[in-house]
Amino acid sequence: MPTKHDTVFDKILSGEIPCHKIYEDDHVLAFLDIGPLCPGHMLVIPKERKAFLHELSDAAAASIGRVLPRLSRALMAATGATNYNILQNNGSEAHQVVMHVHFHIIPRCEDGGLEIAWNAMPLPGEVADSLREAMLADLANG
Amino acid sequence: MPTKHDTVFDKILSGEIPCHKIYEDDHVLAFLDIGPLCPGHMLVIPKERKAFLHELSDAAAASIGRVLPRLSRALMAATGATNYNILQNNGSEAHQVVMHVHFHIIPRCEDGGLEIAWNAMPLPGEVADSLREAMLADLANG
Repeated sequence: MPTKHDTVFDKILSGEIPCHKIYEDDHVLAFLDIGPLCPGHMLVIPKERKAFLHELSDAAAASIGRVLPRLSRALMAATGATNYNILQNNGSEAHQVVMHVHFHIIPRCEDGGLEIAWNAMPLPGEVADSLREAMLADLANG
Repeated sequence: MPTKHDTVFDKILSGEIPCHKIYEDDHVLAFLDIGPLCPGHMLVIPKERKAFLHELSDAAAASIGRVLPRLSRALMAATGATNYNILQNNGSEAHQVVMHVHFHIIPRCEDGGLEIAWNAMPLPGEVADSLREAMLADLANG
């Protein structure tokens, strides 16, 4: 099922645009981000052409999950980093730029890496119960 | 293989500490974060007891990947959010607090969500080549 328009990742998957390829299997491609937050910053994408994670098939999502540990080990070996983040953004308000699902693996490095502001809020019991009920209903339906 | 010490997630997995459970299968548990960045913020953890993603088995990591799309859909249905982030932190310098692997699913909401500073740097070709070579060597060895 094609998404609305081509992205740069379609051209990388087709070979029209080159990449620093790290890993490929039937379902997944991994390559270096050319605008890294630290050197070694890697992108892991499904060959399935979906803009958002919630659109992705279970099989494609499992295939990405399966390779994240080994790709993280390769990133650690190559960079010496011992701390890193996995990040996957959905929607332009959530910092997504390329509208094809991609997981970032971002090493920490001196003066670099993923900078996060963590502004947690409380979760009142009645809000939790209401959210949980709605989530369970959605999961039961599909 | 036990990790060095119990975490709060061990007590949640054993039932000693209650949680707002959203999903459970043989390999995965998902529950609401009680200190959310926005209401609906969910944690997805493996039952496999590992502190860091690079320690996790392929099977456990695939099991988490597989359920992320459906849990994201449930989160969207329950909250009305259309934008969200998946985040998984490894190491205290990368914002990890509980030393048991956990994936956050964080909805955007009015005045809330995951706040990121994106300070990208260039990736010189010779650095990319050197990193790629080291990563491919590590993947070939393991």
